[in-house]
Amino acid sequence: MTPEEFRAAGHELIDWIADFRERVPELPVRAETEPGDVRRALATAPPETPDSLADLVADLDRVIVPGLTQIQSPSYFAWFPSNASLASVLGDLTSSGLGALGITWQSAPALTELEEVVTEWLRELTGLAPGWHGAIHDTASSGCLVAMLAARERASSFSEMRGGLQGEPSPYVVYSSPHAHSSIPKAVLLAGFGHDNLRYVGTDPATFAMDPESLRAAMATDVAAGRVPAAVVVSLGTTGTTAFDPTPEIVAVAREFGAWVHVDAAMAGSAMLLPECRHLFAGVDDADSIGWNPHKWLGTVLDTSLLYVRDVDLLVRVMATNPSYLQSSVDGSVVQYKDWGIPLGRRFRALKLWFHLRLDGAEAIRARLRRDLANAQWLAAVVRDEPEWELVAPVLLQTVCVRHVPTTSVGGAVPDADALDAHTRSWVEALNATGLAFVTPALHEGRWMVRVSIGAEATERSDVERLWQLMRSTASVST
Amino acid sequence: MTPEEFRAAGHELIDWIADFRERVPELPVRAETEPGDVRRALATAPPETPDSLADLVADLDRVIVPGLTQIQSPSYFAWFPSNASLASVLGDLTSSGLGALGITWQSAPALTELEEVVTEWLRELTGLAPGWHGAIHDTASSGCLVAMLAARERASSFSEMRGGLQGEPSPYVVYSSPHAHSSIPKAVLLAGFGHDNLRYVGTDPATFAMDPESLRAAMATDVAAGRVPAAVVVSLGTTGTTAFDPTPEIVAVAREFGAWVHVDAAMAGSAMLLPECRHLFAGVDDADSIGWNPHKWLGTVLDTSLLYVRDVDLLVRVMATNPSYLQSSVDGSVVQYKDWGIPLGRRFRALKLWFHLRLDGAEAIRARLRRDLANAQWLAAVVRDEPEWELVAPVLLQTVCVRHVPTTSVGGAVPDADALDAHTRSWVEALNATGLAFVTPALHEGRWMVRVSIGAEATERSDVERLWQLMRSTASVST
Repeated sequence: MTPEEFRAAGHELIDWIADFRERVPELPVRAETEPGDVRRALATAPPETPDSLADLVADLDRVIVPGLTQIQSPSYFAWFPSNASLASVLGDLTSSGLGALGITWQSAPALTELEEVVTEWLRELTGLAPGWHGAIHDTASSGCLVAMLAARERASSFSEMRGGLQGEPSPYVVYSSPHAHSSIPKAVLLAGFGHDNLRYVGTDPATFAMDPESLRAAMATDVAAGRVPAAVVVSLGTTGTTAFDPTPEIVAVAREFGAWVHVDAAMAGSAMLLPECRHLFAGVDDADSIGWNPHKWLGTVLDTSLLYVRDVDLLVRVMATNPSYLQSSVDGSVVQYKDWGIPLGRRFRALKLWFHLRLDGAEAIRARLRRDLANAQWLAAVVRDEPEWELVAPVLLQTVCVRHVPTTSVGGAVPDADALDAHTRSWVEALNATGLAFVTPALHEGRWMVRVSIGAEATERSDVERLWQLMRSTASVST
Repeated sequence: MTPEEFRAAGHELIDWIADFRERVPELPVRAETEPGDVRRALATAPPETPDSLADLVADLDRVIVPGLTQIQSPSYFAWFPSNASLASVLGDLTSSGLGALGITWQSAPALTELEEVVTEWLRELTGLAPGWHGAIHDTASSGCLVAMLAARERASSFSEMRGGLQGEPSPYVVYSSPHAHSSIPKAVLLAGFGHDNLRYVGTDPATFAMDPESLRAAMATDVAAGRVPAAVVVSLGTTGTTAFDPTPEIVAVAREFGAWVHVDAAMAGSAMLLPECRHLFAGVDDADSIGWNPHKWLGTVLDTSLLYVRDVDLLVRVMATNPSYLQSSVDGSVVQYKDWGIPLGRRFRALKLWFHLRLDGAEAIRARLRRDLANAQWLAAVVRDEPEWELVAPVLLQTVCVRHVPTTSVGGAVPDADALDAHTRSWVEALNATGLAFVTPALHEGRWMVRVSIGAEATERSDVERLWQLMRSTASVST
């Protein structure tokens, strides 16, 4: 495709995307395709000769859009927000258009140094102390794996340069909340620690936050048995209920035992932009690493995940390679992001953060986050006030966890736990099947609840009010 | 930013990108900025209020473009091609514009199933046997790490579910060519095998390909010492000289010892689209995993790396997580790519492959690859015919490795090896400093050579001819 052909096709697609974003509110929120529908509609033989853009756009309209859950819908309340702000979309377009290749500083100085600039901007905007050094990863899953690898190597005095984990005499142990995101145990297993060396620490029954005394007891037991506490993962904003583990107390325990502290704030990290929310993040500056995702609530389009570390030298020692064909005369005086993570090749991801922050501005982003917090408090208040509805957990940010408990309909008696589970799953499926909104059922301490995760960029109070009507009507019909 | 604002800004940026691609041939190929220049030019305070698009575009022109090595230039011959075809740029724009979120099939059925379609298309186009199952990763570094994790878990009968690597009695060993890409030893170290358990196997002195008998001897020695051969990495198209390890013989040895075979064809894999090149890939269908990068020579914009495996069940067993909030009623009947790699969250990357293949068509892509192979053979022939120039390695694909050996200028005597190294580094730096072309110096078996890696989408024969003139003029001046 020539630049002139690109110009014509690009204008057409920009209009198609603008039109799409305008009609998102009218689309079913949850994809209603059946398994295999999309594959059957599109899986012809590989194209030998060029198709027209018109053919592709027709397939987008006919198959792709109806085959997607509409994450950008104002009535999307599932999982967590995954906003793709249009300013950041323009930054990502610029990245693809430039076709830069980040493998070393030399291959793309601007790619490297703009990543330094935007990660420093976000450090300042989130109130993190100087001394944190950030890089952009694809997801918090990868960032957490990098943190676990750094922790493994620090604990084992760089066993990777000797016989690996197998050469080590004492098992290394990692600790986390049982409410931690699934990427945490995955990272622990992939890093080679093994399931037997992953400890789920007890939590507070009211806040679902990690209990530091249980952590201390677990570490002490392991040490007594000849095992070495290598790392603890602090979850700030758990996936289930947005619980916040107590960072200062956990850091204090971890220091007693020499363990790495990784803070997983993948979703909640955006709240650090709000000074009034920073109390939830007290103590994070004393951790060893912290990861959070601008591609969630903040709204920089996927995939934009930040991992900050304090000890860059250690990280580089764990992750570095230095083959001759990547060497240059400036190596000692520049940042080489290839040595901060797993991939060598790097997209110019800094551009999407740069476009997002510059075109929208931090003030407007903070105002939007505050709107969402207020909407969550509104929903929490009406749930609290309504008979037969209950809040399952404290509402610290923008996620409201609820259950509908239909006491009256069963003769005034509380339904048993299994019946309540069945009722919860029934009404949430009925709600999602309407296509008018989408929320997530989840197990919490063994029982089903419904998570209403507010924070899509387009969601206004009126959308939350409509959701609440829909929740009440579907829950009462399902009774 | 509203859809209407996006529409206006998007049109402006599309034009800017088209203009940029038109003027790329006039830009210096290697970035000539000094360390810190970009950071100093852009590192103001984080923006509180919105900037205009005009301000951003001005910064793109003033700082970003001059701060990039122009990978899309017709005179880019460094590292490996990293083409960002404009058709694929449109696919990536569509991905960002849709703002889809791939975490489960349910979150984005079309994202999942189109990835099944395009990976199957590329399996067919590359002549791989049915029974390979592909997924899109960011880079071959990540793909290779996934393969090493799968190999580790197969060898150890899923030690991750017990005490991890430390609980295992016998060390696990990985084998590769010393010419393998730096991401291979990195993956081995990150997967926890340890440096002591990474074996660089001897290679053929003429072809620089792994010697299967040396591999067998190394594995036998390890087994005799109580160690377990876990994996061997076959490099097809090494980074230095595009050497091809002999896959059938390596597979035969690996089978004797029960080791996983991972094929790293990151760069050269594109050549599998050409039937006349498939002999180089004989035997790959008997491997356990193969990775290659459409974001290199093929030209699907970064980041588009493919990893195919034969045993999906094993891979999923190693990588899977299944928290309640990601469960749905269709789980058993659909592909869940979250369980095929490291990240949970997934961009709609299939769109860029889909746009690229459909808008350009396979015929045109094959014609371009053949053009590049012919250009490489042309350069190899003129180098071979020219006094004082020598080919360092066989030219199997599109990379030509050369040295200029200035016999006449030093009285007819061959310069000693250190003097020749100094001369090589001197003329290649002089060439790159002109900004007219960019090639990579590299160490090969301890001595410096120059790699001319042909294959930028825009590179025609005339560009290679101009490069050859430049090589001769800079090498003679540097003598």
